[in-house]
Amino acid sequence: MTKSNLGRFFEDFTLGETIAHATPRTLTEADAALNIALTGSRYALFSADTFAQNCGLGSAPIDPLLVFHIVFGKSVGDISLNAVANLGYAEGRFLALVYPGDTLAATSEVIGLKETSNGKTGIVTVRTTGANQLGEPVLSYVRWVMVNKRTESAPASAGSTPSLKPNLAAPDLVLPGDLDLSNYDWTLAGAPHAFEDYAIGETIDHVDGMSVEEAEHQLATRLYQNTAKVHFDALAQANSRFGKRLIYGGVAISLARALAFNGLSNAALMLAINAGRHVNPLFAGDTLYAWSQVLDAADLGGAGALRLRLVATKNRPCADLPLKNEAGEYDPAVVLDFDYWAAIAKRR
Amino acid sequence: MTKSNLGRFFEDFTLGETIAHATPRTLTEADAALNIALTGSRYALFSADTFAQNCGLGSAPIDPLLVFHIVFGKSVGDISLNAVANLGYAEGRFLALVYPGDTLAATSEVIGLKETSNGKTGIVTVRTTGANQLGEPVLSYVRWVMVNKRTESAPASAGSTPSLKPNLAAPDLVLPGDLDLSNYDWTLAGAPHAFEDYAIGETIDHVDGMSVEEAEHQLATRLYQNTAKVHFDALAQANSRFGKRLIYGGVAISLARALAFNGLSNAALMLAINAGRHVNPLFAGDTLYAWSQVLDAADLGGAGALRLRLVATKNRPCADLPLKNEAGEYDPAVVLDFDYWAAIAKRR
Amino acid sequence: MTKSNLGRFFEDFTLGETIAHATPRTLTEADAALNIALTGSRYALFSADTFAQNCGLGSAPIDPLLVFHIVFGKSVGDISLNAVANLGYAEGRFLALVYPGDTLAATSEVIGLKETSNGKTGIVTVRTTGANQLGEPVLSYVRWVMVNKRTESAPASAGSTPSLKPNLAAPDLVLPGDLDLSNYDWTLAGAPHAFEDYAIGETIDHVDGMSVEEAEHQLATRLYQNTAKVHFDALAQANSRFGKRLIYGGVAISLARALAFNGLSNAALMLAINAGRHVNPLFAGDTLYAWSQVLDAADLGGAGALRLRLVATKNRPCADLPLKNEAGEYDPAVVLDFDYWAAIAKRR
Repeated sequence: MTKSNLGRFFEDFTLGETIAHATPRTLTEADAALNIALTGSRYALFSADTFAQNCGLGSAPIDPLLVFHIVFGKSVGDISLNAVANLGYAEGRFLALVYPGDTLAATSEVIGLKETSNGKTGIVTVRTTGANQLGEPVLSYVRWVMVNKRTESAPASAGSTPSLKPNLAAPDLVLPGDLDLSNYDWTLAGAPHAFEDYAIGETIDHVDGMSVEEAEHQLATRLYQNTAKVHFDALAQANSRFGKRLIYGGVAISLARALAFNGLSNAALMLAINAGRHVNPLFAGDTLYAWSQVLDAADLGGAGALRLRLVATKNRPCADLPLKNEAGEYDPAVVLDFDYWAAIAKRR
Repeated sequence: MTKSNLGRFFEDFTLGETIAHATPRTLTEADAALNIALTGSRYALFSADTFAQNCGLGSAPIDPLLVFHIVFGKSVGDISLNAVANLGYAEGRFLALVYPGDTLAATSEVIGLKETSNGKTGIVTVRTTGANQLGEPVLSYVRWVMVNKRTESAPASAGSTPSLKPNLAAPDLVLPGDLDLSNYDWTLAGAPHAFEDYAIGETIDHVDGMSVEEAEHQLATRLYQNTAKVHFDALAQANSRFGKRLIYGGVAISLARALAFNGLSNAALMLAINAGRHVNPLFAGDTLYAWSQVLDAADLGGAGALRLRLVATKNRPCADLPLKNEAGEYDPAVVLDFDYWAAIAKRR
Repeated sequence: MTKSNLGRFFEDFTLGETIAHATPRTLTEADAALNIALTGSRYALFSADTFAQNCGLGSAPIDPLLVFHIVFGKSVGDISLNAVANLGYAEGRFLALVYPGDTLAATSEVIGLKETSNGKTGIVTVRTTGANQLGEPVLSYVRWVMVNKRTESAPASAGSTPSLKPNLAAPDLVLPGDLDLSNYDWTLAGAPHAFEDYAIGETIDHVDGMSVEEAEHQLATRLYQNTAKVHFDALAQANSRFGKRLIYGGVAISLARALAFNGLSNAALMLAINAGRHVNPLFAGDTLYAWSQVLDAADLGGAGALRLRLVATKNRPCADLPLKNEAGEYDPAVVLDFDYWAAIAKRR
């Protein structure tokens, strides 16, 4: 009996069980610097202690998306090592800021199990929670994946699919308690556009492009201690459907968010993830572009919040906002369709 | 009206205006480690707290060239996003050491504006200053770039070109106040050659070669939060004059300086940049070599200073010191011709 | 007379001399994070301060293999710049844990010199010691390399070959004094397998594969300040036997150890290196796999220790444990045959 972990198959999950994931991780200033080097992020809040202090915080916090990747990475070995596809996210809430020196650990509760009609796979839905060294939750989100069954069989009758909110709303959003944007420095932040300047429905082409190399996405995905084979094993991938390594979807999210600085400089702080879909695979050598649309807006008191759709494409600039054709099918250039809330400074 | 920043054109600059750049940056031990990983630098002063403490400092300072790249990077979005060419540097002075934990911000004063005769572009000259969280300047330098005009027109009559020093001299150089090289450890520094051992005119082949990959220069240039598109957007660059991504010139400077350790181990601390020219473009896949010549020497009391010409080539070793042909044209292998001052320990 | 270091030739070594190596290095949290990004290591002991504290330590120590690479890197400029081959390691002992903030320096004593029969090269054996800022040794190991002679000649008569232990034994192993595994958290460590669960002779296929890119091994090897030209100079290597850059053998060791987490999650702490052989070269583009065999076991009181053989292959999964053919020759896919001791938690 081997001691190697081959990953769970669909039959290995039990509805309601909670799985504690391995390898807690202390995040440090190095993770913040590597996040900048890997994405090109220029949001001042995560770049400068002075800027963060001017916003009421003790020092620059860790970018919430980096927190997401770290927590997600922990769950892979237990949840999705034998996943066929990562189908979606929902109900992602950032509950507390993470600072250099904090240690994160993660657990996942199985909240849905449903076999697919072909009898070969099933859909596993988990609610994953990341907590810091004090046990305080910093992030909670739901994701569902299609997982291979160990043994093919007729699908079981019922199965369970959890009821999930299509998107979070203002009352679900947690603004960090000490955040104080009353002295917000628009110049150092990079743009004058305040909460009040964004209209629901407004679109923004983020203009810039970023090409991705194998070494870059591998470095990022290993930094997240995400072990999914499809990102790292070129030999095995040579025989896969795509013939090459797939880039972890989170890399596309972080790169697109870094590009979105150009147009959304003041919307640094992600508060929630409503939904996310990796529409097409991203490969090394591709150049990523992005555009955004304002889907909703909410005044949270100490800050505004924008609900934003972030669309990323590969090898196709976004001046004409590519998304879907008339039949409702995604443009083949679209790799990401992501729906989130971010805090943004109000003018006063 | 889009919220994306498309960059300033020549007409958008006003002589005498001061532009405060976005995204302050707290430098940390991680930037120091990444600088080593990205360049291979072995200067002991920036590598070991103990060595720096033995030189009178509190801990290992940040390599001044890294400070330069960080400050330079901040200015790109405001100054050179629509630049056709980065033409030169002058009067670069390192004014105070930067330590992990310091936060840098940058401003640029427009000190020269002159349209070129073709009516399509103009030359913008700025003096950029980087300051720490106390507002103390740590670096000041002049650079001039050729910037596209928004609208082609006949060139305006006069224009303004600032008067700049061809090079800095000993009185311009600032030796850190607490630097004390009286117990300098030549063994740990890696070579016995003191200030007194270098003769004006002397040349040094730095022997080693370093190949550069796309992922490496992209990581470095993103770490500097430099957003110039030519370094990152392979798709757009495919239609450019070169057909591929250009490596940020600062990467060539830092790699060449890291190679220069082999022959200049004790000249770790850059004090001033007299001039710099990126003679030919550097691309991923190229192998960089370098050689130096001692142009001048000055005894600053607590240390010596050498004025050094640093020449870097691509895909051509430097044993025969390649530079220019008889007609005064650069050898096509030369990528960098850089003129700087560095402090160096005296024998006693 | 050039000031560049061209490296020592065989004739430049004296039996019994001690060489102090250049460029001390302060290791920081950034080195720990980069080690994770470069290898994908998931051993909890090096990833989380909380986990390390639960094991009696003050915070997460630096992975001993990273300490090895840093110390090794310092020795390259003095010992192996003109090496034809790195022949072997022996008697490697990790003597004290290294923590972020510690500064390492290295010295090597020449303990063996023997010319080879062809008159062109000689074998230099050194005992290299890494020490921290207090002068306490943290690592000691022997390695021998084949070094070019400056002048070809008939080999000298005798020469000296040191007597080395074929492997270290339990009394040679140093368990960190404050290590206390009585509250060991098997869940966060990632697997339930304790010292008692491993049988001598047992083999483990580590299953996963990791592809290596040029940028990745160059970043790692520069982080170690290892300057061996064969890893970096693509132009010079184009004319070498292999026609391309060679990956530093230590990169293969670290990647294989990171893969070995899958099956040896609780054997994080390397205590000793008995022997190591880089059987075949590893190149960028190769995918690395690994398997292990338990060679011996020892109860050290506060922890168990396993003597492990770690075999890494390129472009060939290890399910059938590839090693040697019937003639005793290594399988051409094998790149590493490494023999070490690691501490592992006991069940009680």
